[in-house]
Order: sequence, then C-alpha cells, then structure tokens
Amino acid sequence: MSTLVFGHKNPDSDTVCAAIALADLKKKLGEDITAVIPGALNPESKFILSRFGVAAPEVVTSVAGKDVYLVDHSDLNQSADDLGEANLLGIVDHHKLGDVTTSQPLECWIWPVGCTCTIITEMYNYFNVEIPKEIAGLMLCAILSDTVIFKSSTCTDKDKVACEKLAGITGEGDLEALGIEMFKVKSAVEGTPMRELVERDYKDFNMSGKGVGIGQLELVDLSIVDGVKADLAADIAKLKEEKGHHSVFLMLTDIMKEGTELLVASDDDSVVGKAFDGAVVKDGKVWLDNVMSRKKEMVPNFEKAFK
Amino acid sequence: MSTLVFGHKNPDSDTVCAAIALADLKKKLGEDITAVIPGALNPESKFILSRFGVAAPEVVTSVAGKDVYLVDHSDLNQSADDLGEANLLGIVDHHKLGDVTTSQPLECWIWPVGCTCTIITEMYNYFNVEIPKEIAGLMLCAILSDTVIFKSSTCTDKDKVACEKLAGITGEGDLEALGIEMFKVKSAVEGTPMRELVERDYKDFNMSGKGVGIGQLELVDLSIVDGVKADLAADIAKLKEEKGHHSVFLMLTDIMKEGTELLVASDDDSVVGKAFDGAVVKDGKVWLDNVMSRKKEMVPNFEKAFK
Repeated sequence: MSTLVFGHKNPDSDTVCAAIALADLKKKLGEDITAVIPGALNPESKFILSRFGVAAPEVVTSVAGKDVYLVDHSDLNQSADDLGEANLLGIVDHHKLGDVTTSQPLECWIWPVGCTCTIITEMYNYFNVEIPKEIAGLMLCAILSDTVIFKSSTCTDKDKVACEKLAGITGEGDLEALGIEMFKVKSAVEGTPMRELVERDYKDFNMSGKGVGIGQLELVDLSIVDGVKADLAADIAKLKEEKGHHSVFLMLTDIMKEGTELLVASDDDSVVGKAFDGAVVKDGKVWLDNVMSRKKEMVPNFEKAFK
Repeated sequence: MSTLVFGHKNPDSDTVCAAIALADLKKKLGEDITAVIPGALNPESKFILSRFGVAAPEVVTSVAGKDVYLVDHSDLNQSADDLGEANLLGIVDHHKLGDVTTSQPLECWIWPVGCTCTIITEMYNYFNVEIPKEIAGLMLCAILSDTVIFKSSTCTDKDKVACEKLAGITGEGDLEALGIEMFKVKSAVEGTPMRELVERDYKDFNMSGKGVGIGQLELVDLSIVDGVKADLAADIAKLKEEKGHHSVFLMLTDIMKEGTELLVASDDDSVVGKAFDGAVVKDGKVWLDNVMSRKKEMVPNFEKAFK
C-alpha cells in the first residue's frame, strides 16, 4: 500500500507542488509513495501544472489506515478529517506548529521560511538527489506564489537562494514576469461564484476558543474586485453565520501596492483595532498598509487580540 | 537577552549534551544563546561532562518571556512549566510529536533516529560548522547512551554513522568499552534513595485521559537491583498514589540480556497484557524479552492498550 503525501484543505499551489515534489524525492530515496490533493485545484495551481506538463494528483479525502506525510500544515482542522486514524510518518512545513501529535517518532522538516517548496529544495540537496526540470518548475512557481514574488514579509534569503537554484534548472530567465503571469491567473474573478472566491485560499482557526475564518485573494490590482466587493462582503457575513464563527475576514491583498484591504464580518469589530494598532473598521472594511501575509501578520496578531 | 536551549525535565544525557551542542552550533551561526538544564544532572551525565572537561549548564526552570529552543522533547508536560509564556523558536527532537504548539513559524529538526545528538551532528554538517572535540565527545556519549550502545530498537544507521564521525573527531577507539564504562556509572544504585532511582529517567504521559508514569533504569546486569527491587516496587506504588495516576511502571532494563523486567503499579494489571501480547504480571512484575525502549516499545504499545 502506497504511502500518501498531501497538504491542507483548500489546496494552494505550495500544498499541491510540495506534495508532488516530496513524493518524487521520497520515491528516489526508495519509498513507495504517491502525492494526492485534498480537494480541487485552484486556477493558479492548474496554470502551474499545465505550464510544466505535470498531471494533477488524484483527489483523496480519506486517509484512515494509511501511512502519510503532511506538507504545508500541521493543524488537525486543516488536514484530512480522519488523519487521527492514519500513521503519520512526517511533516514538511513552514507554518506555526499546529496541534497534530503522533504516538511514534516521525520526520519533521519545519523551517521558518516563505514556502514549503524551499525546504524541499534543500532536502533534495541534503539527500543528494537531482531535481527534475518539471519538479523544479513547480517548486519555483510555488515559492514565487507563497512569497508574492519575494515581496511578502514571510520571504527569507533561503527562499531567494532556492529560486535561483531552481531557475538555473528550468532555465527560467525573468522570475518577476513569471510571477506576474501567475498572479494574473490568480487574480481573475470574472464568472466565479462569490463563495468560490472567498474559499479559494481560506483557513479556519480556533483562537482562544473562538472560531475565526481568514480568506485571502492576492490581486495584481485591488480594482479588479471593485465590481464584486459588496457581494464578497455579503458572502463572508453569510459564511460566518453558517460556521457559527466569531469572525470571518477576507484579505484583499494588492501585491503591487503591498497592502491589504480587509473585509470584516465579526461579532466585535474592535478585535481588528486590537490586532492592528488601532485600525478602525468602517463599512465592514479597513486598509492595512504593508500587511500581506496571513501567516506572519494576520494569524499571530489576531491570536494575540483574541487572548 | 540570551536565547535559552534546554531539554526535558529529569534531564538525561541526551537532553544535557544536545542542549550544549545546539547552543555551540547556534552561537557559531551568530545567535546569542545559552544551554541550560531543567534540573540536576544524573550520575551518567556528570561522568560524561567531567570526562570531556565541559562545565555543567546552569539549572533554569522558569522561561517566561524568553526566546527558547527545545531539545529532546515536544510535550508540554515534559517541559518548563511556563513554556506557554516563552517564545518558541525551534525544536530538535527524536521522539513522537507532542502537544507543544506555537503561534509563529519555527524551526524543527525532528527525525526518527536514536538520539537528538545524531540530528545535531547532521546539523553541524548541514551548516558546515566544525564540531569541537569536547562537543563531539558529549554527543558521542549521548548517542551511545540513548541507543544502549547500538542495541536498542531505536538505533538507526544514522546513529552509527554519526558515532563513527564523532569518534573520528575525539579519537575514541573502543566505543563498546566507553559505553560499558558509562552504563556502569548509570547502573550504580548503592546509597541512592529509592525515589531518586525511580525518577532518574522518568516521564509522565497522558494516555486517553489516564495518567501514566514510566521510569527506566538501564543496567549492565539485572542482579544489580536484586537487593532493592522490593523497595523500588513499594516506591512506584507510592508515586502512583501521589500523582493520582492510573499506572506507574518502572523498566529494569538489562542491556546485556537485551530485555526488561517491568515493575507494575496499576489500577488494572491487564493493560500490560494488552500492550505486550498477553504478558502476565505476577507479584507486580513481568519479564519482557527484547523490550529495551520506552519510546519505541513502551509508549506506543501502552498508548494503544489505553485506547
């Protein structure tokens, strides 16, 4: 029975590409292992896979009884619902340490860098395995996506070094251009149902006992969503009720202006001010200058605010 | 303010030596960092430090407000009581993944090998930092101790490779002799109060809501404890009452015969049979052939038995 490797629910490009890359590396180290995804690909991930000619992994949501590796998460509520009945062999991740536990020793590569694929690039190096061209392409795009073309506060020197190495393998000349091409795909909202936009990159958190949902749309220009902003606001209010959450936030991140307009549906708007230095929510929204990262800015700041 | 690095309560040689080694490595990578220990050194650790001329780290039990790295554990109940008020920068460990969580990304090197110091030896290699002779000596002894001179089921090829490398640095010729010299120190029981023996290498666990304590004495010959076995049995029964635990076990591990006599103080002796293939506890004890590891055999088997 093949070991499975997969990332978090609502798979983003790092989760998808990291699973494919880790499966490739582990296969070459002698393991029988298959990359799977916990849900449908988003438009950006489809673009990346098609650009480098890699087939989409199978969607698998139940992992009971399987040997598994996790990539890009270590939180139970972001993982397969029956993860507790699987045998967890390891985790490769770049987030805060979540509440996943094991009863057996395991292999964790968890580093405070911008992207899981940066760590896997280093793992190829550590295990002295050559990175295939198409895998290098996937990892390169995942890093450009997660670090918002090196602009995010989560971006580290290790991410840049990894991209240089990967670009050397793929022969990619202009990373900025590749990144913007990708973010244009990611920015597209036309014809997409509101809920799909809200949940395109969405995660639930438990913050001091309160349910908090945070979604993010990364846009090459905030004006792209002008026509749908009111509908997005109405949809996160609806999602908040459906989930019984204290708050649902949607980050409309302008990657060129390097800031985020936050749409707020909350039992108590004042948590936003507590989290971001007195920021005042008006008409259910607020501009947060220089805030681009859910992981590095939104989650830690809100966790403190909810304490 | 210096970052602190420390291991688990009731420090054993891996916890002590790994903290010292990680502090040395991180210092050379530019961090202001100090190794500390969460309690007094055991006789084996004293022997190791004195053999390689390294001073004992300071005992520190409160870490609130500090930046910290953990070595050799990731369980809250094995760590500093106020770990929740510290800022956890990373974990280097070789155990199951415990219930420590963070609200910020961190650096974890957690591998399924026999000893934390094996991982740190690889980290020196990864970061291209030379291992000082005395640090190599500490790490070598920690690995020989944790793997019971390569006899434990937790021992991996990586542990052996690390020891070869470290012995090359220290010039140590006969690892078996060094190991036995160390285990003789570890085996000494004369003049030691029972509670000190029980707690010399003791950990508490929460297994499906039940409190379970497991101590271990590794002995070059089981006969060493013939004269005190009844007193040890009485003391674990007392400890069980004091802690309000469901069970307290003491592993009397014979490292030459490669098995463990388990002393049992439990509300329900039948858990031992559930954990170990029908093993029958008689007069509060049972011989478990080939069982030498708390981490790899005792903990996972009892976790299943308590489910």
